[in-house]
Amino acid sequence: MPGSPLPVPSGTAGGPRKIAVLGAGSWGTTFAKVLADSARAAAHARHEPPARTVVLWGRDADAMGHVARTHVNDRYVPGIRLPGLLQVTGDLAAAVHGADLVVLAVPAQALRAQLAAAAPHLDPEAVLLSLAKGLERDTGLRMSEVVAEELGRDTDRDAEHWRERTCVLSGPNLAMEIAEEQPTASVVAAPTTELASWVAHACRTRYFRPYTNTDVVGTEIGGVVKNVIALSVGIADGRHFGENSKASIITRGLAETTRLALALGGRLETLSGLAGMGDLVATCSSPLSRNRTAGRLLGLGATLAEVQEEMTQTAEGIKSAPAVLALARRHGVDMPITEAVVAILREDITVDDLAPLLLGREIKSEGTTP
Amino acid sequence: MPGSPLPVPSGTAGGPRKIAVLGAGSWGTTFAKVLADSARAAAHARHEPPARTVVLWGRDADAMGHVARTHVNDRYVPGIRLPGLLQVTGDLAAAVHGADLVVLAVPAQALRAQLAAAAPHLDPEAVLLSLAKGLERDTGLRMSEVVAEELGRDTDRDAEHWRERTCVLSGPNLAMEIAEEQPTASVVAAPTTELASWVAHACRTRYFRPYTNTDVVGTEIGGVVKNVIALSVGIADGRHFGENSKASIITRGLAETTRLALALGGRLETLSGLAGMGDLVATCSSPLSRNRTAGRLLGLGATLAEVQEEMTQTAEGIKSAPAVLALARRHGVDMPITEAVVAILREDITVDDLAPLLLGREIKSEGTTP
Repeated sequence: MPGSPLPVPSGTAGGPRKIAVLGAGSWGTTFAKVLADSARAAAHARHEPPARTVVLWGRDADAMGHVARTHVNDRYVPGIRLPGLLQVTGDLAAAVHGADLVVLAVPAQALRAQLAAAAPHLDPEAVLLSLAKGLERDTGLRMSEVVAEELGRDTDRDAEHWRERTCVLSGPNLAMEIAEEQPTASVVAAPTTELASWVAHACRTRYFRPYTNTDVVGTEIGGVVKNVIALSVGIADGRHFGENSKASIITRGLAETTRLALALGGRLETLSGLAGMGDLVATCSSPLSRNRTAGRLLGLGATLAEVQEEMTQTAEGIKSAPAVLALARRHGVDMPITEAVVAILREDITVDDLAPLLLGREIKSEGTTP
Repeated sequence: MPGSPLPVPSGTAGGPRKIAVLGAGSWGTTFAKVLADSARAAAHARHEPPARTVVLWGRDADAMGHVARTHVNDRYVPGIRLPGLLQVTGDLAAAVHGADLVVLAVPAQALRAQLAAAAPHLDPEAVLLSLAKGLERDTGLRMSEVVAEELGRDTDRDAEHWRERTCVLSGPNLAMEIAEEQPTASVVAAPTTELASWVAHACRTRYFRPYTNTDVVGTEIGGVVKNVIALSVGIADGRHFGENSKASIITRGLAETTRLALALGGRLETLSGLAGMGDLVATCSSPLSRNRTAGRLLGLGATLAEVQEEMTQTAEGIKSAPAVLALARRHGVDMPITEAVVAILREDITVDDLAPLLLGREIKSEGTTP
């Protein structure tokens, strides 16, 4: 049964009272710091003690115990002191219990299992915020769709109830820069403006500025396809392409991302904004991007198996690319860069075949919309 | 009196017979090489000797004599061997005489004087192609407008005649990479598709791929405002902003560029394409960009006078920024980044005031269209 159409959980007009962040990798840990800093600043502005609890949960209880004692997560955000307000635990039930905002910061392919584990402890009115950027490999579903489907299946509330409560956050958000408190903007997308603002206020700090929109699908697609385009830019890097070529790939990459988002009901402004162009440009400019690094290794001649062996953390684009292409085909959307990346990952073509595919051959009018 | 409405100069359906490139800086010299390489490839494909002459003119006759003898322009494109087919001269009348395509590769602020000097020698049916990216400082006119106004004034054909014959070329085109024959895409915009294709075929090579469109104003505005946004990214660099912030500035920069272009009759696709986003991303990714370098010096604390003393070549954004802002105000277009750059150039604000201006303060919906 659908729940009440309240824009925010009842009794929390002033913001969430307890926030659980599930996933203590670099982005989850960093975002937990943002939330705790925001809670402290909000309390300070009201001259009150902090009224909001922020709990970070990670699957490795020993490691979480160490983070809780030292207030440093050296493996994922080395050198960053976490706020005293932030609680850290390896106990999932304790983390989720009573939370009115649950942040999902696990890798895309692990999300469904994580939700199943969290569901029994979840407040029926809780709001979900997904930070993951990917499509589920086997189903091709976006993260917000996985949330609605999985929670609708495993709890006594249906998918529509959870869809109304599922938000996503995306933007030009290299985690390490945010951990260092460098000024950053981001986007919270939610089914309603009220809910987006409720979430945005909970994560606003001096250095982190969330904008809001109601285009969940466009915001998600921007983040998903970005990883695939970053792979192609990485490959171009590995083949020693220049800035001219890479800028063309980034431009065409955003054009095909936009075509897909529009076909799925997303909005052009979202893709022209921070969650589309902004995220793509930041990732493609960063030497730290995992997807770009994986692409560069491919471009230098490594096999996919060698790349996966070399890298300790997931390059999500490798996992999502085939699902993105399948989704595009189902909707009749032309995505030549994604197609080329998938062909390289499948070893149907070599990286040397990439340049003509990316740069085209014939003189023609430059169309970037469908 | 308007000339005949022929899409291309009469008798040149196969392409221009003589092309003059006015301006032997890095981009003019490089583009002359592209044109000569294209002429040679076209002749080779037909198993005929080259039927097209390409002449590069520079104002310094001694330097041009040296380039003509050595086939190297060491000052502007060091280490690049120019094609044997390319003629080089310091004689403006000889260069322009009989040319059916005249390429304008002088700096934006020098264009009007250059046109006045060339006008007496200009074929009345010649097509003009502007490579300059800027607004004329005193008038706020775009380069294509300067061409039509200046030639319409000084010859017996009127402005409309020349407007029909004026094309522009823009895109992610760092000159040195093209000189090194790294694969590059570009955009030729002309009043008609036929004319754009006529020009595009004359500059197509294995490594240089021109697309075509009929959005002259959008193509020009993309190239003009890019220089101003590159200044702001350079300032952010100088202030040690991270990639997140710079990607946000680039994203918002393209949004305000797009607003201006749309207000002037340009098209959204142009700004989302190579001449808008592509050019902006390439410039902002290149450590060689003059505008970004000038911005970085400002960001590090140099005064405008110090920056201008330090740099040997023009940072066009410094000259165009006030004209861009004036144009935006005349059309009621909000351009906060341009406004901030102009205020810094005028020393109304310091570079430390830039961050809040660029990143904003309030939580709100992210709007990128007017």
